[in-house]
Amino acid sequence: MSRGRFITLEGGEGAGKSTVMAVIAATLAERGIAFELTREPGGTPLAEAIRALALDPRWSGVMQAETELLLVFAARAQHVRERVAPALAAGRWVVSDRYTDASYAYQGGGRGQPAERIAALEQWAAPLTPDLTLLLDVPVEQGLARAFSRGERDRMEREQAEFHERVQVAYHARAAADPARFRIVDARQPQAQVAAAVRTELLRWIDAA
Amino acid sequence: MSRGRFITLEGGEGAGKSTVMAVIAATLAERGIAFELTREPGGTPLAEAIRALALDPRWSGVMQAETELLLVFAARAQHVRERVAPALAAGRWVVSDRYTDASYAYQGGGRGQPAERIAALEQWAAPLTPDLTLLLDVPVEQGLARAFSRGERDRMEREQAEFHERVQVAYHARAAADPARFRIVDARQPQAQVAAAVRTELLRWIDAA
Repeated sequence: MSRGRFITLEGGEGAGKSTVMAVIAATLAERGIAFELTREPGGTPLAEAIRALALDPRWSGVMQAETELLLVFAARAQHVRERVAPALAAGRWVVSDRYTDASYAYQGGGRGQPAERIAALEQWAAPLTPDLTLLLDVPVEQGLARAFSRGERDRMEREQAEFHERVQVAYHARAAADPARFRIVDARQPQAQVAAAVRTELLRWIDAA
Repeated sequence: MSRGRFITLEGGEGAGKSTVMAVIAATLAERGIAFELTREPGGTPLAEAIRALALDPRWSGVMQAETELLLVFAARAQHVRERVAPALAAGRWVVSDRYTDASYAYQGGGRGQPAERIAALEQWAAPLTPDLTLLLDVPVEQGLARAFSRGERDRMEREQAEFHERVQVAYHARAAADPARFRIVDARQPQAQVAAAVRTELLRWIDAA
């Protein structure tokens, strides 16, 4: 039995990740691949409990950047060991809505935590690199307008536009530094076209291996 | 206005920390020193929420050692910045029931997380060293018997005796490495004698400065 593959989906607020998760699921199912969908922070009962605490709007203006970084990695350490690594070892593919690149973007770019600090945590808390990362790219204003139209905002969505600009710059830097792993998808397009683009990229990647 | 002093109290389960916290408070009050009592993990609403999650018996056998270490430091990063550092800057003394030495003992000695990993976290997440640390020393069996007689057990108290032996060894190593900061108090004695010993040590330290 061969090891499963680890695919992550990244992007700022309102990039359309939920729709794309469904497209990825349909594409893998079509190819008869056994897979699991998960998300970060979260993915296990304990990691979801940490997520609820980390994103609770009640801590807005209270939670320190260091606290947030440590909470996100606490959830990730649990998720990787309890769920992602066992699934991959059992031959299943894992598709995660966000993973460590999101920490470089949000806690790094957004909150100003040094990249070396994040890299050090990654090395021992979550030493598992995705095989493929899809980055949904949408201008910050368009993404925020979509996210806000959905209603209630969590602690991240409440941040100012400059915060989300820094998140996007950090995402682009991550993608530029590892072009072999990243595929950037233009998410300004209508949903049907984004879906088609994701399906094409994914099938091409599966078939190339 | 001079900076307040930071005193921490350490020791395994059932060492009698609660009683000693009261003795420290009484001694500082007697000298007219303005102080705050706090504890770790915890000490602020957010840090207490992290504590509740970290110690919940529901995660026994589920929570990974890396997750526990990151949660404890998340609570500590918050506690140091939101409460301890501001109080010290305002000239108040802070007395904490446990602090970073407890991570070297529990997450390091107990759970086997490398000391260098803990030291790296300490450096950026909680860069504040206590001025004085009182270590209550009691044999593991005696301490556990006391703790268990109190009733309900949290996730740490449920650990096997060998776990608590490793905790104690790690505490002793910390004390041996920094004799200028540590005072070891023999906590096998009856409560009144422990209280008297703590009061004497504390007054001697206050007057020496």
